[in-house]
Parts: sequence; C-alpha cells; structure tokens
Amino acid sequence: MSLDFSKTASKYQMELLEKVVPFWEKHSKDEQFGGYYTCLDRQGNVFDTDKFVWLQAREVWMFSSLYNRVEKKAQWLEMAEHGARFLQQYGHDGSLNWYFSLTREGKPLVQPYNIFSDCFATMAFGQLYQATGNEEYGRMAKLTFDNILKRQNDPKGKYNKLVQGTRPLKGFSLPMILCNLALEIEHLLPKELVDQTIDKAIHEVMEVFYHPDSGLILENVTPEGGFSDCFEGRLLNPGHAIEAMWFIMDLAERKNDRALLEKAVKIVLDTLNYGWDNEFGGIFYFMDIKGNPPQQLEWDQKLWWVHIETLISLIKGYYLTQNEECLSWFETVHEFTWSHFADPEYDEWFGYLNRRGEVLLPLKGGKWKGCFHVPRGLYQCYSTLEKLHAKNQKHE
Amino acid sequence: MSLDFSKTASKYQMELLEKVVPFWEKHSKDEQFGGYYTCLDRQGNVFDTDKFVWLQAREVWMFSSLYNRVEKKAQWLEMAEHGARFLQQYGHDGSLNWYFSLTREGKPLVQPYNIFSDCFATMAFGQLYQATGNEEYGRMAKLTFDNILKRQNDPKGKYNKLVQGTRPLKGFSLPMILCNLALEIEHLLPKELVDQTIDKAIHEVMEVFYHPDSGLILENVTPEGGFSDCFEGRLLNPGHAIEAMWFIMDLAERKNDRALLEKAVKIVLDTLNYGWDNEFGGIFYFMDIKGNPPQQLEWDQKLWWVHIETLISLIKGYYLTQNEECLSWFETVHEFTWSHFADPEYDEWFGYLNRRGEVLLPLKGGKWKGCFHVPRGLYQCYSTLEKLHAKNQKHE
Repeated sequence: MSLDFSKTASKYQMELLEKVVPFWEKHSKDEQFGGYYTCLDRQGNVFDTDKFVWLQAREVWMFSSLYNRVEKKAQWLEMAEHGARFLQQYGHDGSLNWYFSLTREGKPLVQPYNIFSDCFATMAFGQLYQATGNEEYGRMAKLTFDNILKRQNDPKGKYNKLVQGTRPLKGFSLPMILCNLALEIEHLLPKELVDQTIDKAIHEVMEVFYHPDSGLILENVTPEGGFSDCFEGRLLNPGHAIEAMWFIMDLAERKNDRALLEKAVKIVLDTLNYGWDNEFGGIFYFMDIKGNPPQQLEWDQKLWWVHIETLISLIKGYYLTQNEECLSWFETVHEFTWSHFADPEYDEWFGYLNRRGEVLLPLKGGKWKGCFHVPRGLYQCYSTLEKLHAKNQKHE
Repeated sequence: MSLDFSKTASKYQMELLEKVVPFWEKHSKDEQFGGYYTCLDRQGNVFDTDKFVWLQAREVWMFSSLYNRVEKKAQWLEMAEHGARFLQQYGHDGSLNWYFSLTREGKPLVQPYNIFSDCFATMAFGQLYQATGNEEYGRMAKLTFDNILKRQNDPKGKYNKLVQGTRPLKGFSLPMILCNLALEIEHLLPKELVDQTIDKAIHEVMEVFYHPDSGLILENVTPEGGFSDCFEGRLLNPGHAIEAMWFIMDLAERKNDRALLEKAVKIVLDTLNYGWDNEFGGIFYFMDIKGNPPQQLEWDQKLWWVHIETLISLIKGYYLTQNEECLSWFETVHEFTWSHFADPEYDEWFGYLNRRGEVLLPLKGGKWKGCFHVPRGLYQCYSTLEKLHAKNQKHE
C-alpha cells in the first residue's frame, strides 16, 4: 500500500481550507442584494449575476456544514445565513415551491418546475437549523421535504412536456437524492418516516434502477423497473451512479448491512471500469448502454463533480470494505483529478474539460457549478483518509 | 479566380444524387409503420425508432422539393407522400398543433410545445401541394401557417417555464424561419399577407436582432430590440445568423433591394470572421458576445449544418454581389467541410465533430440530423454554381 493516508488527508484538507472555501468567501457574496454570485471566472470575477436556486441553496448547505462539521467559525455561519435570508425572501413562491432561478435582485426568472431546487433548499435549511437551532429554518426544511414527498411521483407537474401514458419512465435522480436527504434532515423527521424513506430509496436505487445484466445503474426505467430501449432508457451517467453509491454506503454503514455495502462497492468498480476513458483518462459524462451515439453532445467531456464524487465513493469503499481495488482506483482517479481540475495558479477548480482533459470553459463557477462538489468532496475525502490513518495507527 | 464553377457544381450535384439522396431512400423508410427512421448509424443501420416531427416533416419537404426542382421522379414523390401520410395521421393533435415526437407506431410522446414542428410541417405540406396539386395538403399547410402566426408572440404557451414579465426576451429563430416560410408557401397565401410577413421578418432580422456595435446577430433581445446582459442575451450562434442571411438574400433578390443584399453579405463575412476557429478551422457552434464562458457545453463543436448553410450563403453572396471575399471564404469553408464532414467510406455525412474536427458521434442521422441540411445545401450550392458557370460562359 503506497498511499500515505495522513499526508493525503492533509492535502485535501489544506486545499479545502486554504484555496476553495476562501475563494467563495472572497468572491461569491453579493453585499448589495444578498445571496451569492456563482458565475465566477478563473480569477473569481463575476461574469453573470443571475441567481440559481440549486447553487444558492447548496452554498448555504456548504457553509452550514463546514460550521457543523469542521469548525464553529462565526464567519461561516454568517456566510450561510447571508444566503438563507435571500432564499427565504425570494427563493420560493410563498408556498415553499422553489423557483429555479432569480435575477440578482431576487425577482423570479424561472418557475418552480424543478424538484431538485426543493431538495437543495431542504438540505440547506436542515443543515442551517442544526447549526443555529432556529426553529424557522427547521420548519422550512420540514415543509419543503413534505412537498417533495407529495410531488415525487409527478415531479414536473404541469411543466411536463411528455404525453402521459405513451412511454412512462421514472428517473434515477430523485430516489438517489432521497437517500441523502433523509439522513440530512433526520433530526427533523419522525424515525418511522426516516426509516421508511430510506428503505424505499435503497430499494429503488439498488434493485429497480440496477441493471443486473450489465451490473450498471440505468438513469431511466419503466414504472415496473424494466429496461426501455429508447434514448432515455439506454442512458448511463457513470458519475451519477457512482455518487449514489457513497450515499448508499453511508446508509449501509448506519444499518450495519454488509451485503448492501459490498453491492455498492461492486457497482462503483463496475461503473468505473465501464466509464473510464482508456485513451485519455477520466470518466465519460454520458454513455449509451448499447453503445449507440448518445443524445448528449457533451457525452465525452470530463466534469469536475464526476471525478470528485468518484474519489469519495472509492475512499469510503476502501475504508468500509478494505477492497484493494478501491484503493488502486482511488490513486488513479486522484492523479487524474488533481492534475487536470485543480488550478495551479488561482483558487478553486476548473469544472469542464474536453475529452483530452484540456480546459473547455475556464470558469470556477457558473449556472451549475457552485460552492458544493469541490468543498464537499475535499471534506469527505480528508475525513475518511483521517479515519484510515487512525485505524492504521491503532494496528501498528 | 481559381474555383472551377462547372466542376464544383458537378461535385455537389453528384454527392447529392449518388451518395446522399440514395442513403435516405435506402435506409429511412419504415415500410411497416410508415414515416421515416432518422436515427441511422454510419452505415445506415437503424439504432433508434422514435419519430421526431421536425425530421419527419423536413424529409417530406426534401423529397417534394427534389421532385419540384430537380427531376419529376415518381419514387421521390412516393417517398414524400409516404412521410406525409404518417404525419397527417399521427403528427398532430387533431387541431394541427404538431407534436414534437412520436413512437415508431405514431403514438405521441412529446406535446406540441415546439412551434418549429409547425414550421416544418407547413414547409412539408406546402411543397408537397406544389408537387401534387392535392388540395388537402395545401389546406394543412395554410391552416398550420395561420396557427403559427397566431402563436408567434407566445410560441411556448403553457409550456413556458419563464416567469412572465421579469425579463422578457424574444428569440431570433422564429422571425428567421418566417423569412423562409412565407416564400415556401407563397402560392397558398394572399399577396398582401406574403408581403407583410416578409417585410416584418426582414425588419426583425436585419434591424431588431442585428447588433450594430459588433455587426453580429444576437439570438435573443428585449421586446424593444435591446441588448440584455444575461446568458441568453449574450448568446451568438454564428451558423444560425449566417443561415438566415441566405434567406434574406433570396428576399433581397426578389425585392431587387441592393442595400439589403449588401448588408446581408456583410453580416455573413463579419460573422464568419468572428466565429471561425483560427486554431483548428471550422466555425464554433455557440459564443458569448462578451467573451464569457457560454452555457452550452457543446460550444466549440463543429456541426454539419453550420458549415453547409455557410457554403450556401457564401456562394449566393458571391453570385449576387461578386464580392471576392465571399469566394475566397467559400473555398476555405468548402475545403474544411468536404475534408471533415463527408465520409470517404459510406454514404451521407457526419454531423458532429469535436473542436479538432474529429468525429464526435459517428451517426448519419439522429434526433436532430435528418434528410435536410446536407441535401438542401448540396442542391443550393450546385444550382448557384451552375448559374455562376452560365454567367461566366456568357461573358467569354
């Protein structure tokens, strides 16, 4: 075993605390209108002022989470509440249906068609409630979560452009995120609802969307869990599947379910073997399970979150199962990620590379990349690496 | 002048008649359920059977147009009517609102949210009416066109996810396509409506969406025609702007408007100078007028239609104005297009290349690429090159 857990933990921790968190503290706060800028160029200059609810909520969550898990720094809590105030005032339609985007001033631009805005708002206010004990934050998290459960079988509602009944499909994203969400706001829910939500989500992810013939996770299946031979049904998103597996590992650890853990690790490794680009390195963004050309023109690009989520799943998988394949893959993905996404000159990481690993968009934040995957991933990796180091020392 | 017009005309014509039209005749006809397959791999094998109304209608238009303009071949007319029967029966909701996509059997998959489905249906039935004189085809074209005019100020209707009033923007696509559509179905409309539609569309394209400071066409502007500093407002689609210019040239020729013609040619050249990739050749797909990272991850890709439409605009521009810059650019774009999009081994052309000009998706047809831009472009180029040849011979 060549990896120095302690040294590697420090590398991830220093990057988080010295290069990534400071980037967002310095550049993302809109002092005039509240909330955060997320469209930031390589140096951190604002190039667009629209406010996307996914990213506003994720940044509230991130700073609350740093406060709860890393250090009780007043400036982190203030940063989180700065975004929360903006979201409370402008982020929803009055009934806690969360808009997709807002102008800089907070006027709604895009209707609440996207249920993931609600998911990230729940995470944000749940985490901030933990940090502050402020009941109003807890109430918003809880009511938004109730809304999500109500909408979960028809998440797009009136904004759905599909003709009902012709080819019903259900998507992987929502059950996947529910795995994570139920734990995030466990402190706000009755135990029964938590257990029930978790068990249902685990079943969906690990049985319904799992495709036994290939060992892979499908992005869309029929209501009965079957394969549908159409663009959506053939779609694979390797990073998405791998990300879900560390949510499952967290649940398996909590449930002390060894078989579930082993299955999650196997899916990570199978997906990685399938989705790794043997020519240029890195993990493809989208693939077609039958090898057809996918609809997504960006299919061969290398995205930051895919690689960071994979690092989390691999190091957790190794910590929890001691599977050596996890560790050797971790080293490979670590090498690719740090040499391609980390920016040697400025803070924060690049998000979008072409297939060859060259920078495609030089931004550090945009419509979809905010203060979330990089810091969350650095935190998850360093804390798991520290646990590995501690375990090793005990054995010495 | 190095370009041999006669030889080049033959090259385009032979490609059309020997390699492109036969590809669609051979591979796209669904004998069992009607309509066309458009998802065809490099060799012409079907990899998906969904039927996209844009592409169904465009193929009806293409075969009708070949019949009307190239040769009165019964097999082309039958090919057109084969698709028309499917569209008549399954393509719309009973009130001539055209669905976006259908299953192979013709069941509606995606609602009629996209007004361009209606535009292409109008073109299809208008052209087929010209070929056959069948009044029912004429009626469908005319009624669908009336619908488009009624919907033009709110094309997405209830499927619009934007909050009304916050940041109203209008898009370039619809006025641009109306420039072409009014001429396509001129034979079906009162002269007054044709003239009025044309004049309004010319005004929109050449004054409202034209951005005098840069000499470029914006994809989205405020209702008053102003610049909006947001992702949509900063968006440039060079191929789209250049394509519109040959529609404008056709109208300028018809109106005998020299100033309009010169302005259209200038926009083509300015856009090409702006959108050409000096490093790898070819024209970028999307750009941001302020040089910011665009939202579209596919921004640097090289798409077939962009290059083919540019060839049409350049050769028409040269024919109509004798501007030598058009001719020298035509040679440059011709060289790039034929060496990158044409397939030396199999019929039809590739559609999607990465920035370096390497094949990104090996398909010949898909959800957006059908029997349209390649054959229409080859036809437009060869007929203009033939006119140039004839003019030269007269001068000799």
